[in-house]
Amino acid sequence: MFQRRLETLDRELLERIQLDRLRKSIQRIKEKNKKYWEKIGKPEPGDIKSLDDLKNFPFLTKDDLRKNYPFGLACGEQCEFVRFHMSSGTTGTPVVNPYTPNDVEQWGEIMARCLASAGLTYKDVLQITPSFGLFNGGFGFHYGAEKIGCFVVPIGPGRTLLQLKFLKDFKTTAIAGIASYPLRLIEIAKEEGFDFKETNLRVGIFGAETWSEEMRRFIEREMGIETFDIIGMTETGGVGLGIDCKAHNGIHVWEDHYIVEIVDPETGRVLPDGEEGELVVTTLTREGLPLIRYRTRDITKVLSRERCDCGRTHVRLERIKGRTDDMLKVKGVCFYPRQIEEIIMKHPEILPNYQIIVGKIEGKDVVEVVIESDKQDEFLRERIEEEIYSLLGLHIKVTLKKRGEIPRSEGKAVRVKKFS
Amino acid sequence: MFQRRLETLDRELLERIQLDRLRKSIQRIKEKNKKYWEKIGKPEPGDIKSLDDLKNFPFLTKDDLRKNYPFGLACGEQCEFVRFHMSSGTTGTPVVNPYTPNDVEQWGEIMARCLASAGLTYKDVLQITPSFGLFNGGFGFHYGAEKIGCFVVPIGPGRTLLQLKFLKDFKTTAIAGIASYPLRLIEIAKEEGFDFKETNLRVGIFGAETWSEEMRRFIEREMGIETFDIIGMTETGGVGLGIDCKAHNGIHVWEDHYIVEIVDPETGRVLPDGEEGELVVTTLTREGLPLIRYRTRDITKVLSRERCDCGRTHVRLERIKGRTDDMLKVKGVCFYPRQIEEIIMKHPEILPNYQIIVGKIEGKDVVEVVIESDKQDEFLRERIEEEIYSLLGLHIKVTLKKRGEIPRSEGKAVRVKKFS
Ligand SMILES: [Zn+2]
Ligand SMILES: [Zn+2]
Repeated sequence: MFQRRLETLDRELLERIQLDRLRKSIQRIKEKNKKYWEKIGKPEPGDIKSLDDLKNFPFLTKDDLRKNYPFGLACGEQCEFVRFHMSSGTTGTPVVNPYTPNDVEQWGEIMARCLASAGLTYKDVLQITPSFGLFNGGFGFHYGAEKIGCFVVPIGPGRTLLQLKFLKDFKTTAIAGIASYPLRLIEIAKEEGFDFKETNLRVGIFGAETWSEEMRRFIEREMGIETFDIIGMTETGGVGLGIDCKAHNGIHVWEDHYIVEIVDPETGRVLPDGEEGELVVTTLTREGLPLIRYRTRDITKVLSRERCDCGRTHVRLERIKGRTDDMLKVKGVCFYPRQIEEIIMKHPEILPNYQIIVGKIEGKDVVEVVIESDKQDEFLRERIEEEIYSLLGLHIKVTLKKRGEIPRSEGKAVRVKKFS
Repeated sequence: MFQRRLETLDRELLERIQLDRLRKSIQRIKEKNKKYWEKIGKPEPGDIKSLDDLKNFPFLTKDDLRKNYPFGLACGEQCEFVRFHMSSGTTGTPVVNPYTPNDVEQWGEIMARCLASAGLTYKDVLQITPSFGLFNGGFGFHYGAEKIGCFVVPIGPGRTLLQLKFLKDFKTTAIAGIASYPLRLIEIAKEEGFDFKETNLRVGIFGAETWSEEMRRFIEREMGIETFDIIGMTETGGVGLGIDCKAHNGIHVWEDHYIVEIVDPETGRVLPDGEEGELVVTTLTREGLPLIRYRTRDITKVLSRERCDCGRTHVRLERIKGRTDDMLKVKGVCFYPRQIEEIIMKHPEILPNYQIIVGKIEGKDVVEVVIESDKQDEFLRERIEEEIYSLLGLHIKVTLKKRGEIPRSEGKAVRVKKFS
């Protein structure tokens, strides 16, 4: 562990720290940004008697952050900030998160905990494949790696042939990336006759996209590695909000830095542990953009608040199932792309690239699942249609294409294509 | 200044520090890499009685570094290193420079001095446009900015419209980039009716390419900024080897970290101050890849070792004129692309994008200069041909194209195209 004492705090003490820091966060908002303070109902730090009082605060949404581009909800003058990261903003105005020097420290700390949770030490060689820049992925791993002192291969995204070469040249032991990138590595490795077993690669840390258990097994098997699912987003201060540990029974969220709640996405009611709903995050130590009850739109549940086999006491969440805005509704049936992925990935003869095409034709819902295989087998195609029907009760057309016919993306994978 | 005491050291003390550190560097090579130590003639640190003894060491060339890819000349085990940067390697095997934690500190320190030399403080907003990753540019500015504590806009290369938007959104005061990038910014700004005068932009820090005085004036005039010429390369530990100061009478090289010599590129003889030749760099504080007499191929001369108007005592070099391998030889006449650029840039009606095309047809040297202008003026075209002839004594065909006909590059500008 990177910070054994902090990562194994008793729950009582952890919650005392949370309460104390929540009050400080409210105090900061009150002092630094009146508009933000008014938006959350002008709370006095002393009004908060217990963590339970948090549920009386209004939610903060992505739209709130967007509307306040760039610094409308920022707490501090621009000269107090040292950098920012930004959501990609492919859909509308981006979200900007400004960092104070303490925020950069905080980020490095939680990322170092994540890397240590995946078993990394100063002896490791970490190949960082997310982009460095406005996207938080690259710099998140960069700051974490600086804290644990491992050797970094700062290659960034793309250049897959060079990535494979570097795995050997620099004896890479761990690779970080967005969750669809290992598929690209596996694909090019196959084409090139590159054998992951001839490398020192042992660990993969992937995130920023929903990836099913079946996809995870596929990556682990093909690359011969243990994978870790890392979560976090621009709004929470970047990648590193949580990660699973070697026990792989849930994603630990660093509770001395964040409070998580699970709420009903429809009503906003807080759900008891074990019930699935939308993840809501309150930051406790962020200065530039403290969040009070931020609706992440990620669907998950609390698995446990007990001490994990790894020794850590911080809450464990189920792996993210999807996002509320990923949910597809076809002929009245709601489902997540990940559910389709799970079916597809159970068939080793189907390649891990797929696409779900949804839209309306003359007011009627139309949906199609496109898969790739080297075997153009009508029976296989029908079988997938049947399995989808038995899961969702929905007839979905499955189209079988040849290897490489579904376009690959350098960034996040495009799993769902919508038309209207 | 970032480190007033160190940047204004008396020459005698500066040279004592250099001698002491040179011995330590030799000691490190001896301890950490026998092969490298043998290559430089197995010197004992105590053998070096004065800085003058340096001239007895053999040169190190780019080829030596390439042949030793990745860590053949590295001083230390891979687990002592925390990162590396790499030359682009478009021509053959790349050069890898591994950094120890102290090397990262050293880099941050010299880059912070460079930023301070350009007048930046924690109050500034620095938009970093070089690439973050294997190329050293982005991270060099990143580390320097962290030391001075300014606000960083970590945008990286390309996305020129977004760059212009950010200049306003984040009140950018300083921009860092490769020397041809401001041309792109100016071009897109014109198309978009974007006025740099409506921004807070005050400073431009550019490098990684040779840019003439005329180009510099053009950029300063069009963007309404003061520009600074920063030097450094992967081999020396990245950007930050030196920069000019507000006095703009030469590029200060940080002599407590580097020794510079100017040598005759043909004979290797050390040239006296004021004579033009090839820059040779010896590192004094780098651990991962200490350099002894590295031939940079950059052409310059020592302007002064006296105290500058800015108060700094560190040596001043003339701005880089070109590289030994940039030199073109046509019909027995040698010249640098920058000399052509100087002629072109004197004509405001010619756009700052140009290309020199050289090669051989049936064994005969052929050369052509392609320029762009909104005015398709035959008289202008002939005038450039005459000016080139009167400078070089060489008839070179000049072709006049319309705006936008010469391809733009996202990375370094392609000024010279060779064919054979
Ligand atoms: Zn655990
Ligand atoms: Zn000066």
